[in-house]
Amino acid sequence: MSPKKIKKLTLKKHRSETGLFIVEGDKNIRELLRSDFNVLHITGTKDFLSVLFDAIAQYEQRTNTRVSVQPIAEDELVKLGTLLSNNAGIAVAEQKPEPSIDSVLEEATRNIVVVLDDIRDPGNMGTILRTADWYGVAHIVASPTTAERYNPKVISSSMGSFTRMQVSHSSLEVVLRAANEKCIPVIVADLEGESSHTASLPTHGFLLMGSESHGVSEEAKKHASHRVMIPRFGQAESLNVSIATAILLDALRRGR
Amino acid sequence: MSPKKIKKLTLKKHRSETGLFIVEGDKNIRELLRSDFNVLHITGTKDFLSVLFDAIAQYEQRTNTRVSVQPIAEDELVKLGTLLSNNAGIAVAEQKPEPSIDSVLEEATRNIVVVLDDIRDPGNMGTILRTADWYGVAHIVASPTTAERYNPKVISSSMGSFTRMQVSHSSLEVVLRAANEKCIPVIVADLEGESSHTASLPTHGFLLMGSESHGVSEEAKKHASHRVMIPRFGQAESLNVSIATAILLDALRRGR
Repeated sequence: MSPKKIKKLTLKKHRSETGLFIVEGDKNIRELLRSDFNVLHITGTKDFLSVLFDAIAQYEQRTNTRVSVQPIAEDELVKLGTLLSNNAGIAVAEQKPEPSIDSVLEEATRNIVVVLDDIRDPGNMGTILRTADWYGVAHIVASPTTAERYNPKVISSSMGSFTRMQVSHSSLEVVLRAANEKCIPVIVADLEGESSHTASLPTHGFLLMGSESHGVSEEAKKHASHRVMIPRFGQAESLNVSIATAILLDALRRGR
Repeated sequence: MSPKKIKKLTLKKHRSETGLFIVEGDKNIRELLRSDFNVLHITGTKDFLSVLFDAIAQYEQRTNTRVSVQPIAEDELVKLGTLLSNNAGIAVAEQKPEPSIDSVLEEATRNIVVVLDDIRDPGNMGTILRTADWYGVAHIVASPTTAERYNPKVISSSMGSFTRMQVSHSSLEVVLRAANEKCIPVIVADLEGESSHTASLPTHGFLLMGSESHGVSEEAKKHASHRVMIPRFGQAESLNVSIATAILLDALRRGR
């Protein structure tokens, strides 16, 4: 694959048109090769490609496919991708179809599913993927204005967890209304909710997180079956959304 | 103050030489004006300076000092600072002396003090300041290789909490040895520790956090009175350090 084509994949438009995405850096490429994504191409420094040789061979044997490999100078590599420094490589892989709303609802009857309402910062989104993976969450529902799951910054800040996370970009209204109809819990982070230290919380259902500046939208809040807040002991006005998601996932897992 | 002098303050060398630092963006400048920092200069867009007028007047009245104010075009402002976009302003303030080790030890006899071992990323450091402030922590001890507290990225990601946080940059060995001598708890985040969901934890003492890649250093770990780990339910290899700090602070406050 030409460097020019790879460079284009840093843009959402070209990712949508081609159904491809890029994965940057050592840790994320290694996790990609162990995952069920189809890997088409890896370009990297000679040093990186030589230490990656076994991992590529294992991938090719397991999937009975070939990965095209292209050495590149480090300064060229950095120009190609989005990272400020990258002495490893960039992989190109195929996007996977999103899970159906039915399968997301099914998942929420037995596990926590995180729902992101307008979380635009891709670094926060990637950190949420990583934290959700730590807490055994497998599905995320993202509102249309939430960062795209294949955004390179989401991928890199997920530290490999993007490979284990199913993400549906969907209107939240559709999912939450269906959850209400099926009596699946909808837990909403809300400053006026019950304290997460004392609330009795379900062990499955949707955990709905809103943006730091506006919180969860009023429309989405209407679907809440539980409202929960993180008790504050000091003076900060708010928490970063990836921090708040982590604290609530930890609280939910305490009940299990 | 000349734009050239302000621009220089984005560099640590010039911050150290002058004892000054910069604060960027609306929220952080407003918090700065309410704090006990000495504010010398504010440059900003005309729109921002006009809505900030009252806050500056209140600051001047309260401190009986004058802030020099300089309007600037938005594109010039962005060139001056470190943010990708800034339609508000940049303030210049004086650094404060660090608290003595004795006062940090005293604080740790009645409240949690967060200790950061080699946390180099300023975004993580700023998020930790913000979260610590939420949980009522007032002091942080930072190892010499941890991001500098006046780094502009620390300031901006702290969302105003930098104004309420005392930070000592110090050799950890000195602080932790003194803690041991005075029988002040030293709680260490450690994968082999007791679960944070069940451990009985003190309500004061030092909470020691290490880097994501190397964890807490072996020397520092020797001073642990409690070792605690965050239970994992899924497959991510690790948590972001600001996430882990938040979850442990939440666990510590549950005991209170």
